[in-house]
Amino acid sequence: MIADTILDQAVKDLFDGIRFQEGPEGLYDPLRYMIAIGGKRIRPRLCLTTYSIYKQALTEEILQPAAGLEVFHTFTLIHDDIMDHSPLRRGNPTVWKKWSEDTAILSGDVMSIDAYKRIAQAPASILPEVLQLFSKTASEVCDGQQLDMDFEKRNIVRMSEYMQMIGLKTGVLIACAARMGALIGGASRESQQHLYDYGYLLGLAFQVADDYLDAYGDEKVFGKPIGGDILNGKKSWLTVRAVELGAKGLEEALADNTAAPEEKIALVKALYNSVGVAEEARKTIGELSAQAIGKAREAALPEGGLEALEHFAHALVGRVK
Amino acid sequence: MIADTILDQAVKDLFDGIRFQEGPEGLYDPLRYMIAIGGKRIRPRLCLTTYSIYKQALTEEILQPAAGLEVFHTFTLIHDDIMDHSPLRRGNPTVWKKWSEDTAILSGDVMSIDAYKRIAQAPASILPEVLQLFSKTASEVCDGQQLDMDFEKRNIVRMSEYMQMIGLKTGVLIACAARMGALIGGASRESQQHLYDYGYLLGLAFQVADDYLDAYGDEKVFGKPIGGDILNGKKSWLTVRAVELGAKGLEEALADNTAAPEEKIALVKALYNSVGVAEEARKTIGELSAQAIGKAREAALPEGGLEALEHFAHALVGRVK
Repeated sequence: MIADTILDQAVKDLFDGIRFQEGPEGLYDPLRYMIAIGGKRIRPRLCLTTYSIYKQALTEEILQPAAGLEVFHTFTLIHDDIMDHSPLRRGNPTVWKKWSEDTAILSGDVMSIDAYKRIAQAPASILPEVLQLFSKTASEVCDGQQLDMDFEKRNIVRMSEYMQMIGLKTGVLIACAARMGALIGGASRESQQHLYDYGYLLGLAFQVADDYLDAYGDEKVFGKPIGGDILNGKKSWLTVRAVELGAKGLEEALADNTAAPEEKIALVKALYNSVGVAEEARKTIGELSAQAIGKAREAALPEGGLEALEHFAHALVGRVK
Repeated sequence: MIADTILDQAVKDLFDGIRFQEGPEGLYDPLRYMIAIGGKRIRPRLCLTTYSIYKQALTEEILQPAAGLEVFHTFTLIHDDIMDHSPLRRGNPTVWKKWSEDTAILSGDVMSIDAYKRIAQAPASILPEVLQLFSKTASEVCDGQQLDMDFEKRNIVRMSEYMQMIGLKTGVLIACAARMGALIGGASRESQQHLYDYGYLLGLAFQVADDYLDAYGDEKVFGKPIGGDILNGKKSWLTVRAVELGAKGLEEALADNTAAPEEKIALVKALYNSVGVAEEARKTIGELSAQAIGKAREAALPEGGLEALEHFAHALVGRVK
């Protein structure tokens, strides 16, 4: 095992020192911008964590693929922000807003290719497996975005559908990160699969937590204004569960754009509270996180591995109490 | 060598029988649509041609990467059509026009991933090299699209800049196709490089021919209405060369959207003719094609190889007389 502080520093160094290809003015600026405005870098951090369970030192064979996961994730954010018409990302203007839609399309495209360039630096002996894992994941993430957009046009979305959507949009890339670290680190196929499942369940927990914190979080900790999903009338775990629990008037309240923002947020949260959705969300996050750790336990990891993954899960979703 | 008719049939079978992943409704329909409306399939055909110089039978190790090149090319068309606001492609509505911009963005993304899935089926022993060639090419194609868009905003574009742009936008992917076939076929590194240069020069000849035929072609042979570039005021080899040769009033004529279409086309062609740009274009196409064949000659190919590439070049740009 490699110490947490060393892994944290490795992720920081990886993105502080990241270099993109030179090209026509404007094409690569959005890549640098998006990496500079940061993010939690969950995916590379998890990839390095599972690798470090099997290997004692970090080399380019893992650092570049780990960076590729974050670059791919960032590419999907750039394109999603166009499709969702989101003006802000992490408190900063989105790429299409700051530059243009055309720039966001093309810079996103070149960023997805950059991701593949980094993933392809995995050891040649296992490159076909690494690529198969990554490409399968990448197209599933697109499937998830498609479902997300489809759901926005529908009145009723069942919880099973919602969980499948966030599994594709968020779960599989975190699962891929966990598995890729283990695969490159030399884990058995069986352990790889358990770590994939750990990442998938943790990804679900993370997304439900994100939905929960959007309504119930502390703005300073959450990093963006509270109530964004409510104001945008967006479907979330909270809306889907509240409808299941029989909250009356929720759809109308979410669709009402005449109310003042604070009033709309207060009304929707009152409806959530009337059916006890916040407690349910916290319980679900705890259950998913526990299931994830159960999968890590099944992986029969070398000494220190399980503790590292428990710690990772706690750091990611433990903020929801 | 494998006979031309067999290679033609192999390309036809490859796309008649192409299968894309199943996914959310709507996401994969544009892929099937774009493949169904066809195209010349130059890139897979050239890839199979250079492979067949070295190998006697076509197997999945070359068929899937060859298909990947066409899928990648098609992805760039889907996104370019959004950025260029083009309503038609090969006489059919473009994806953004037929579905929506969001669908065109996301289906394009998933198509670029599909391309990588196919490229990754190259033999494992040379996969790192194949991927490096492909990813380098893919990001250069994006660079070319960025330059093309930049040039549309400028008044003056020098011929050297224009040739660099079409080299990136069109040349490098045809060059990559030629090299990839040779690489997977087992050619020496030196022969691969000569075949890359053959493809690059032939790609330039092809693009200049496309620009020429847009103004001087036969609509039935060219496959789209004559004068499209002129009506759209688009920079082409003809406009760049005519300005160099001192054609007076060309920019104003191209920018004038008040004239009737036939009149605008007639006026611009009269200006082209006043400085003899059509003859120059035909000469340049012939020279580039001859240079390409010179590179194929330097590659010291097995018997029949040079003739196959001469034949390919003739079929591609020999229609310009």
